[in-house]
Formats: sequence, structure tokens, C-alpha cells
Amino acid sequence: MTQFDNVSVTKQANVYFDGKCVSHSIVLEDGTKKSVGVILPSTLLFTTGAPEVMELLAGACRVRLAGSEEWTEYTGGQSFQVPGDSSFDIETTETLHYVCHFG
Amino acid sequence: MTQFDNVSVTKQANVYFDGKCVSHSIVLEDGTKKSVGVILPSTLLFTTGAPEVMELLAGACRVRLAGSEEWTEYTGGQSFQVPGDSSFDIETTETLHYVCHFG
Repeated sequence: MTQFDNVSVTKQANVYFDGKCVSHSIVLEDGTKKSVGVILPSTLLFTTGAPEVMELLAGACRVRLAGSEEWTEYTGGQSFQVPGDSSFDIETTETLHYVCHFG
Repeated sequence: MTQFDNVSVTKQANVYFDGKCVSHSIVLEDGTKKSVGVILPSTLLFTTGAPEVMELLAGACRVRLAGSEEWTEYTGGQSFQVPGDSSFDIETTETLHYVCHFG
């Protein structure tokens, strides 16, 4: 499935870290909120409110969750989970295309 | 209207110019194709296939259409038209949020 159907999409993008991360918010028919976005090559620290599942469509990165000393590599086709009210370091080595699932 | 409803959105973004421009493609219920995106501060040359209307939601830029020597300033709330099979120079001075209407 390369697209979401029957969704609402916010016209204005979310731009984080001087544009290193750009996403658009979408709402599915059932009210579920997600975002679709890109992270350009960089090393960034993201914080979470709600728990997140980051579904990687393409690209490559290493991720270190808060409280962990271990970096784990992920590439397109893989996902990783982040607890709520937490954070993660992400080193993007190849432009990352993702869908972020909340809750 | 801050969002598009009942649309299909392509999960993977279009990334141009090393990420200076990031957009997502959407298709309205009636089949009309548009894109929603961002241009970060930069000076870029875009080429068009179909004619485009660039609707600016926020930000500021100067635009010079192919064949013109004149730069015109635009800010959020304004739009500019570009003929098909043509090009335009755009100097973005403040991150530009836009909807691109084709045809």
C-alpha cells in the first residue's frame, strides 16, 4: 500500500530542525492520526508525547532509545517503537521516508 | 480551509534539491492531483510539465518566470501562475509552505 485513501491532510507541513525533518499530518476516516514525512541525513534528538511506531518506507538510520546505550540500525521496510513521554537519538545516513503511527 | 478532506496521499515524499523542497502528492475525490509542500530558504530553478498555480500558505519568496527579467515578491496568502513546459527561478527568503495546483 503506497498511499492512504480517504484521509484528511493538513495543508501546512510540520518543519523541525531547520527542515531536517518535514512531515504532513493526516487523519484517517476512523479518526486515527498519523504523519507522513522525511528526515534528511543528520543526527537529531526527537522527543515523544504519545507512544510512536516509526514505519520506515525507505532510507537508513541508527536509533538509540532514551536510557539505552545501544544503537540499532533500521532500513526501509522496518519499524521501531518509541514509548510515550520519552526520546530517541536518530542518525539518518540515507534520507528516511516514514509513516509515524501514534498511540 | 487548512486541510484537504477525502483525499489520497502518497506515503513517500518527493524530495528535490537535496531536501530544499519536500512535497507529498495528493489526489482529490474527483481525481484532481495536487501537491502540498515546503521550500526551505534557498535559490532554486524549477521546471514545469503541466501549468502550475503555486498557492502560498506562509513564508516569503521572489520569483522570476522564464523569459522575464523581473523578480516579483510573494508572501503567504498569495499565488503565482507558471505556464506548462517552462521554468521559474525562486529565491525563498522565509520557509515557504505551498499547495501546488496542476493543469
